[in-house]
Amino acid sequence: MAVKGPASPSEGKPPAHFRAKKPPRNPVAEIPAAMNSKPKRSQPLVGFEDSHSVLPMNTPTPSPDRIMQTGMAFWASKVLLSAVELEVFTDLARKPADGDTLRGRLGLHERGARDFLDALVSMGFLERENGVYRNTPETDLFLDKRKPTYLGGILEMANHRLFPSWAHLTEALRTGEPQSETKHEADTFGALYADPARLREFLRAMSSVSRRANQAIAANFPWKDYKTFVDLGTAQGDLPAQIALKNPHLAGIGFDLPQVEPVFEEYIRSLGLADRLRFAGGDFFADPLPSADVVLLGHILHDWDLPRKRALLVKAHAALPTGGAVIAYDALIDDDRRERTHGLLMSLNMLVETPGGFDYTGAECQRWMRDAGFRETRVEHLLGPDYVVIGIK
Amino acid sequence: MAVKGPASPSEGKPPAHFRAKKPPRNPVAEIPAAMNSKPKRSQPLVGFEDSHSVLPMNTPTPSPDRIMQTGMAFWASKVLLSAVELEVFTDLARKPADGDTLRGRLGLHERGARDFLDALVSMGFLERENGVYRNTPETDLFLDKRKPTYLGGILEMANHRLFPSWAHLTEALRTGEPQSETKHEADTFGALYADPARLREFLRAMSSVSRRANQAIAANFPWKDYKTFVDLGTAQGDLPAQIALKNPHLAGIGFDLPQVEPVFEEYIRSLGLADRLRFAGGDFFADPLPSADVVLLGHILHDWDLPRKRALLVKAHAALPTGGAVIAYDALIDDDRRERTHGLLMSLNMLVETPGGFDYTGAECQRWMRDAGFRETRVEHLLGPDYVVIGIK
Repeated sequence: MAVKGPASPSEGKPPAHFRAKKPPRNPVAEIPAAMNSKPKRSQPLVGFEDSHSVLPMNTPTPSPDRIMQTGMAFWASKVLLSAVELEVFTDLARKPADGDTLRGRLGLHERGARDFLDALVSMGFLERENGVYRNTPETDLFLDKRKPTYLGGILEMANHRLFPSWAHLTEALRTGEPQSETKHEADTFGALYADPARLREFLRAMSSVSRRANQAIAANFPWKDYKTFVDLGTAQGDLPAQIALKNPHLAGIGFDLPQVEPVFEEYIRSLGLADRLRFAGGDFFADPLPSADVVLLGHILHDWDLPRKRALLVKAHAALPTGGAVIAYDALIDDDRRERTHGLLMSLNMLVETPGGFDYTGAECQRWMRDAGFRETRVEHLLGPDYVVIGIK
Repeated sequence: MAVKGPASPSEGKPPAHFRAKKPPRNPVAEIPAAMNSKPKRSQPLVGFEDSHSVLPMNTPTPSPDRIMQTGMAFWASKVLLSAVELEVFTDLARKPADGDTLRGRLGLHERGARDFLDALVSMGFLERENGVYRNTPETDLFLDKRKPTYLGGILEMANHRLFPSWAHLTEALRTGEPQSETKHEADTFGALYADPARLREFLRAMSSVSRRANQAIAANFPWKDYKTFVDLGTAQGDLPAQIALKNPHLAGIGFDLPQVEPVFEEYIRSLGLADRLRFAGGDFFADPLPSADVVLLGHILHDWDLPRKRALLVKAHAALPTGGAVIAYDALIDDDRRERTHGLLMSLNMLVETPGGFDYTGAECQRWMRDAGFRETRVEHLLGPDYVVIGIK
């Protein structure tokens, strides 16, 4: 064996060969506090931020950095989801706090609390000055439960429902079967809606993820040409509410399973819209639809298999007058299926969560609409990942 | 109730008000195939890629996009992890294939296969031309199991061990207790090492995540001034191997729990290094350490609580001659704890995975080294998220 005892090194201070150059600051940490500044993200969120190699001659040109970033991105994701679950942002919206105070208020063990809060700082979701943590403008506006702008509902659902389901993505890919808590129940929404607590969480989540799209539809569709509308799968009723708030001449119906009615009524009453919006309970596959000038399908078509998607469009067509419109919106996949990651991932979410749902391209949806009898169709970008497909009867 | 029957809309074709502008192409899909081109990522990986608002006057300036991107980033993460589990890249490295052929070879159900593969295309991890899928240069080099450059070991572990553990992050934050499969076992590594299959996966994962850092240490430390080294917690022995390959005058020892020996011996023999590298089995807390000119701690200190971290540095000091060096590397947290997200998240990973481990700043580690008796210390950037802390006796 060649290893000898300790030699006497000829020099005690090796030169600083490791220091390639000063790593750049992570720009996520530099988001200014001003309300009117929007952070520019020119680098991925999670670490590996300064991965220039110190071995430029020896390592191959392709870099594993994006592979590693993506593979470990669930860490940052879960930190934010746990922060929403623990109501970090709701708490700090009441009053900024130092680490110990905040840890006590949130009920955190001291072992991980500081890393958790400082990780949120480094990701740009909290600010910390002289040891005092406070929300950023974004998290204060969108993740404080007591504000009407709260969008955390979808993240609450992602945290306790989707994250565990997605742990079984491989099994879903092998079997084609959903992996959620309803995996052994044939009727996803019936099962979901049977539990009042789960139902309320789901309906709030749907409002939170759709509100800005709903506002865009309320503001940008030529509503002056129409008088009535019906929203299929209305959930809390946020789409009818946003449309009615923006367009005082319209009256509408929110259609959903009967269990939804109290949640809808409560929300609509709270907005003072009960004189123009009403609820209609039913199963939109089994029961007749109310007639209206416009039929809306917001984040609905992607829940269902192809025969049910087509059936909904046929029923929408039947409910409309000549000249009436169906408006469907979802996170559409691009026609060539190679650009819009979110639409493709949303479709995998439908695999994991529903027995037959999938997302689709604009070309596919327009074909289904034409097959259902709509004489004219088009696709337009709505907001973020959402696109509308419009069919005119 | 105000809703009337269908009116006759005055106009059948509403103007295209929804179209704000053509959304930009997702640059992830545009990574060229050439081996010598490195993709530039100027946008986050997952969707929401074109989230300009169509309501510029009505929506507040802060945007929820980064919140939503981060909260849902586990989708993209899990797609890549499942692709590694299913050996998509190893399969395509043998031979590119169309969707149906690939689906058959991988054993995927038809329901989700196309979305899964096209999601990998949109994320830049596969290419698709005329319906034929093939690896990108990066995934071919780093995610083909049959290549020595394979880095998927850490992702395999992330997929089946860390992702499920992290689902319980909130509980870990509340209790301070690890949430992994070993959560009821006091001795994390003893339990992990007791199962030969888990042990082998873990050791390979450690090699894969550390190899480039190991190569950087082998190339850049002034090894000419030293003759012997010992690597504590050597796992497969990749750090000794890389050092020995680059520096023919050195002889070294890989030190780890006795169960590791066969895996170490197999790896070292396969590289033809058995004449200069040997294994020493033991518990680095309970047993004496071999003496050497340099003591290495690669991704080791962060596994342990503070008393054990300090104990390791004291023992390293005792094992060195005057002028000898301890080299510790880990994903260091920046001293102000507000920039290096990866180090902070790695520390939360230690919370979830170990009874007492945590990551640390360079200033902290230098203080521990000085307290252990090292006369000179410094911190240097190594590679990606890894930094070395060097102490000279």
